[in-house]
Amino acid sequence: MKELIEEVFVAGYAGADFSGDDSALLRADGGELAFTTDSFVVDPIFFPGGDIGRLAIAGTVNDLLTSAARPIAISASFIIEEGLEIDALRAIAASMRRTAEEAQVGIVTGDTKVVPRGSADKVFITTSGVGVVRRAGVSGGSARCGDKVILTGSVGDHGTAVMLAREKLLDTEAVVSDVAPLVDIVTGLIESGCEVHAMRDPTRGGIASSLNEIASQSQVAVEIDEVRVRVNPAVNAACEALGIEPFFVANEGKMLIFVAAGDAEKALGVVRSRRYGEEAEIVGQVRPGPAGRVTVKTAIGTSRMLAMPSGELLPRIC
Amino acid sequence: MKELIEEVFVAGYAGADFSGDDSALLRADGGELAFTTDSFVVDPIFFPGGDIGRLAIAGTVNDLLTSAARPIAISASFIIEEGLEIDALRAIAASMRRTAEEAQVGIVTGDTKVVPRGSADKVFITTSGVGVVRRAGVSGGSARCGDKVILTGSVGDHGTAVMLAREKLLDTEAVVSDVAPLVDIVTGLIESGCEVHAMRDPTRGGIASSLNEIASQSQVAVEIDEVRVRVNPAVNAACEALGIEPFFVANEGKMLIFVAAGDAEKALGVVRSRRYGEEAEIVGQVRPGPAGRVTVKTAIGTSRMLAMPSGELLPRIC
Repeated sequence: MKELIEEVFVAGYAGADFSGDDSALLRADGGELAFTTDSFVVDPIFFPGGDIGRLAIAGTVNDLLTSAARPIAISASFIIEEGLEIDALRAIAASMRRTAEEAQVGIVTGDTKVVPRGSADKVFITTSGVGVVRRAGVSGGSARCGDKVILTGSVGDHGTAVMLAREKLLDTEAVVSDVAPLVDIVTGLIESGCEVHAMRDPTRGGIASSLNEIASQSQVAVEIDEVRVRVNPAVNAACEALGIEPFFVANEGKMLIFVAAGDAEKALGVVRSRRYGEEAEIVGQVRPGPAGRVTVKTAIGTSRMLAMPSGELLPRIC
Repeated sequence: MKELIEEVFVAGYAGADFSGDDSALLRADGGELAFTTDSFVVDPIFFPGGDIGRLAIAGTVNDLLTSAARPIAISASFIIEEGLEIDALRAIAASMRRTAEEAQVGIVTGDTKVVPRGSADKVFITTSGVGVVRRAGVSGGSARCGDKVILTGSVGDHGTAVMLAREKLLDTEAVVSDVAPLVDIVTGLIESGCEVHAMRDPTRGGIASSLNEIASQSQVAVEIDEVRVRVNPAVNAACEALGIEPFFVANEGKMLIFVAAGDAEKALGVVRSRRYGEEAEIVGQVRPGPAGRVTVKTAIGTSRMLAMPSGELLPRIC
């Protein structure tokens, strides 16, 4: 998919600002705006810990936050398969409203298309968001040698929860999606004055993808301490059973934060004091090189490369 | 669908700004922004005169224009059915780029999701747009008694072209979609200083829908002179054969413009001098009441009501 995007779309839009970040930046009448979009096709549409509606709002809010932007407006566009129960739709709409209220952002415009049965699967939601940039220069390309890497909590919960719910494997209630809007954490960081250089929410492809993207955009190496990365025991067990690796599994309520070494402890304290940040840890650091490389220091002191996920990612996780 | 939107979504988002216009208005750092979104599910994805990519860009650009906004950025999110030929995707991307260039707007951010075969139909595209409002107060709620109604060209072309292409009825090349971004027309109007009160691009539900929406939002009556509304002969013939009414059929490159009576002739001259506006006509006027009523004066001098389209609209026209 990454190749497809790069080949077909990015190459197609010469001159457009595809920075590699999750939001594009716009200049409008003196302010800097962040603008982002994502389509959500998760299957099933309701899963332990969330639903496609909460996912759509949180996903777009979190993408804006990675540019240190305050989300100000969300649009929501629905493609609905004929025959979807109106109660399901109502539950999804209520969930979106609650999530938007939690993130203190308005859903201000929308669209709905109904397609005949069999032309879509239940419901797909595309959300776009506009935010006002509160701190310029925060980008996947701005990580610097010496930075510490904060991870706001455990990894692999969302993707594992969805896989288990879909395949009806194991006890599907033992693993719960982490889907959540991280406004409180990012607001706290910005207001603290801590020198944050880069943020990314590790969704598709997990922290492996996000760390590789930032290492590559910033032309630095990233070293992660495996023992500092929290994986919930039920997630670990399920991933082993499914033959997947938690570092490659999607999260929907976590943030990777690259912060200047001198501010790392202070930033960690801020994150831990905020909602959804209670289990944050400093999980790694930025090294000068080789540029683009991500390594994991294992519990027994050896080191292994953490590559970009290759081949097929799990479909319809988000 | 209108009921569904109103019942589920609008009611769900108390406090959000669902003005009834095609774009929401945002205030950000001193400027006023327009923000809009639409999903495109047209079938077939290539049709005479256009394709889903051109449709997605033109549709979002035109929605921004109805708020008298200059489009500054578009996002594009794709839901792709596994197995769609890469060449089709490349052609769509190229068409989007060309249309965006024509509209002088950048496609600045995007997303792509691939779903398994049978979970979607070829490709769905959701575009969102941000624009800078150049003239405040232009809204479907701002039409005034005495206003003249300019229509920028013929009606029914897009919907008819898609229906014919899909059903492989008649000579599918005789009717060509009008899909086009109308930046040139709206820029001309704004720069002319003409007192434009309301604009709407009559897409789903045709001019019948748009006129009823504006009549209702503005609490005025609208009277249309049937003989002034241009319907291409091939569209007329096809609509008769299909048993549909051109006033109810989607357009994708037309604008309804409500302008103060004193500026109507000047505005008509401006529109006619601009791309896609050559065949513009003054097709009607605004009456004081009954509020919300749209009537059509027929060729023989009688008058009939033009109701909001009821029941099922043609599916997957845009």
